[in-house]
Amino acid sequence: MTDISNLLSRFSADFNARLDNFFPLSDNPENRVIEAMKYSVTNGGKRLRPFLVCTLARLFGLDFEASLRPAVALECLHSYSLIHDDLPAMDNDDLRRGKPTCHKAFDEATAILAGDGLLTYAFEILSSPATHADAAIRSELCLLLAEAAGAFNGMVSGQMLDLYMETHQKAGSEEIIRRIEEMKTGRLIRYACEAGAVLGRAAPDQRQALISYARGIGVAFQIADDILDVEGSPELVGKTLQKDSAQGKVTFVSLFGLETARQMAGDYIAGAKRALSIFPAGEEIEILQNLADFIINRRY
Amino acid sequence: MTDISNLLSRFSADFNARLDNFFPLSDNPENRVIEAMKYSVTNGGKRLRPFLVCTLARLFGLDFEASLRPAVALECLHSYSLIHDDLPAMDNDDLRRGKPTCHKAFDEATAILAGDGLLTYAFEILSSPATHADAAIRSELCLLLAEAAGAFNGMVSGQMLDLYMETHQKAGSEEIIRRIEEMKTGRLIRYACEAGAVLGRAAPDQRQALISYARGIGVAFQIADDILDVEGSPELVGKTLQKDSAQGKVTFVSLFGLETARQMAGDYIAGAKRALSIFPAGEEIEILQNLADFIINRRY
Repeated sequence: MTDISNLLSRFSADFNARLDNFFPLSDNPENRVIEAMKYSVTNGGKRLRPFLVCTLARLFGLDFEASLRPAVALECLHSYSLIHDDLPAMDNDDLRRGKPTCHKAFDEATAILAGDGLLTYAFEILSSPATHADAAIRSELCLLLAEAAGAFNGMVSGQMLDLYMETHQKAGSEEIIRRIEEMKTGRLIRYACEAGAVLGRAAPDQRQALISYARGIGVAFQIADDILDVEGSPELVGKTLQKDSAQGKVTFVSLFGLETARQMAGDYIAGAKRALSIFPAGEEIEILQNLADFIINRRY
Repeated sequence: MTDISNLLSRFSADFNARLDNFFPLSDNPENRVIEAMKYSVTNGGKRLRPFLVCTLARLFGLDFEASLRPAVALECLHSYSLIHDDLPAMDNDDLRRGKPTCHKAFDEATAILAGDGLLTYAFEILSSPATHADAAIRSELCLLLAEAAGAFNGMVSGQMLDLYMETHQKAGSEEIIRRIEEMKTGRLIRYACEAGAVLGRAAPDQRQALISYARGIGVAFQIADDILDVEGSPELVGKTLQKDSAQGKVTFVSLFGLETARQMAGDYIAGAKRALSIFPAGEEIEILQNLADFIINRRY
C-alpha cells in the first residue's frame, strides 16, 4: 500500500518549492500585501487540494508541470478563505497551523487586502495562457472555481450560513450541517477533482465518477475534522481544539455521537472508493483509494 | 453637444433595471449575503465604468445586450472594493452615496463576505459562456480584470500603498500619489475601456488609443475627486467631504493647489480626447469626448 502520508509530504515539498516564484517581492511599500499573501499561502498545510488536482491530472496522463498552476490557484483561493475566516469579525482566531494568523502577523487591513489579493490572483493564474493553451479549458476552470467559491451555493454562502447559525444560536439539523459542509468544504474538494478532469479532458462518465469520489471524501473529511476537534492533539492539528463544543456548535459528532460519526465517515469513504471502480486499476487509482482512507485515519 | 448627464442617467436606469436579475434571492438564511451584495451594487453610483464598457463596445458595433454582462461584472468588482474599503479596519466609513455602508446596514462579517462574493461573482459572470461564445474572449476578459484588480500593481496594491502612506504618516510625493491613483482608480477605468475593445475585437492601434484615452480620463477623474473633496457639496457627492485634508492626506490638490490641479486635469482631458482622433467622427466618439469633459466638470 502506498504510504499516503509520505507521498503527501513529498508532494508538499515539491509544491512549496515552486510557490515562491508565484510571489515575487519588491522594495515598494505596497509589497507588504504580497508578503502577507505569501506568508499565508506558504504557512504549511497538508496541500490536500493541490495534491488532488495534480493526482487527478496525472490519472489522465498530465505531469506535475501541466497541473501546477491550477493547483496553485486553488491553494491561493483556499488560503484567502482561511485569512478572511480568521478575522476578528469572523472566527477571530489567533493561530493557524501553529503560527499567528495573517491579521496577527500583519494587521487587519493588510489581512483583508491579502485575502482579496489571493482570491483575485487565483483567477489571474487560471485565466493566463501559461496555464493551458486552450482558452476553453482556462475559461471552464475559472467558471467552476467561481461557482464553487461564490455566494450562490458556494463557499461564501457556506460561511454565511455557518455564521448565521452561530450568531442566532440556532440548533442545527442534520440537513443544515450537511449544507454547511457541502458549501464550505465540499465544493472546493470537488473543484480539486473536477479541475484534474477538465485538464485531462475526461469523458463525462469519468468526470461524474470523480465528482462522486469528491463528494464522498469531502463529507468524510468534514466528519474527521469534527472528530479531531473532540479528540485530536492540538500540537499535531496546529489549532485550538474543542472550539466547536465550547461555542455550542452543532457538528456531525454532537448530532450523532463519536461512534456513529466515525461509522458514517467510513461509509462515505467506502462510497468514494466504489465510485472509482469505473477506472482500470493503476497507480493513481491506488493513490486516490489510499488517500480516501487517509482522510479518516489522519491525526492532523 | 450630447448631454452626458442625461445620457448617463438613462443608461443607469437601463442598467439598474437589469441588475436585479443577477441577484436572485431565496428563503435560505445564507441569502443574507446575497442581500448585502445586492444592497451594495444597487446603491446608486454614476455607473461610469459600465457606461464606458457599453459605449466602447458600441463603438465596435455591439449592442447593450452583448456588453451588459461584462459591464455588470465590472460593477460587481467595483462594489466589492467599496465595501471592503469602507470597513472599520480600512477607511471606516459609515456613509456611501448617502446611505449606510454595507457593514452598517448589515454587519462586519456579512460585509466581508459580501465583498468576497461580489469579487468572485465578477469572474463567474465573465467566464460564463453566456457572456461571449468565444472562450478566448471570456478568458482574456478574466485575465485583464484580475490583473487590473489584483495585488501586483493593481487595485489591491493601490489600496495597500494608500493605507501605508496613512498609517506611516508619510508625506506623499507626486510620484506616490500618481502610483496610488493609477493602481486604485486608473486600472479599473482602463479595464472598462479595454473590455469594450476586447469584446469588439479592436485592432491593436485602436486598443492602444483607447488605453491612452482611459489613462487620461482616469487621472483627471482622480484629480476631480480631490477637488470635489475640497469644494464639493456633501449632498450632491453623497459622502463625507474634506476627509483628505482632515486626515492630512496628500492629494493632487494639497500638492499643487486647486488652480494647478484644475489645470492638470484639463490637460489630461485634452490628451484623452486627442487619443480618440484615430477614430472617424461618430456618435460614440462624440459621447466619449463629452464624457471626458463631464469628468472634470461634474459636481458629484
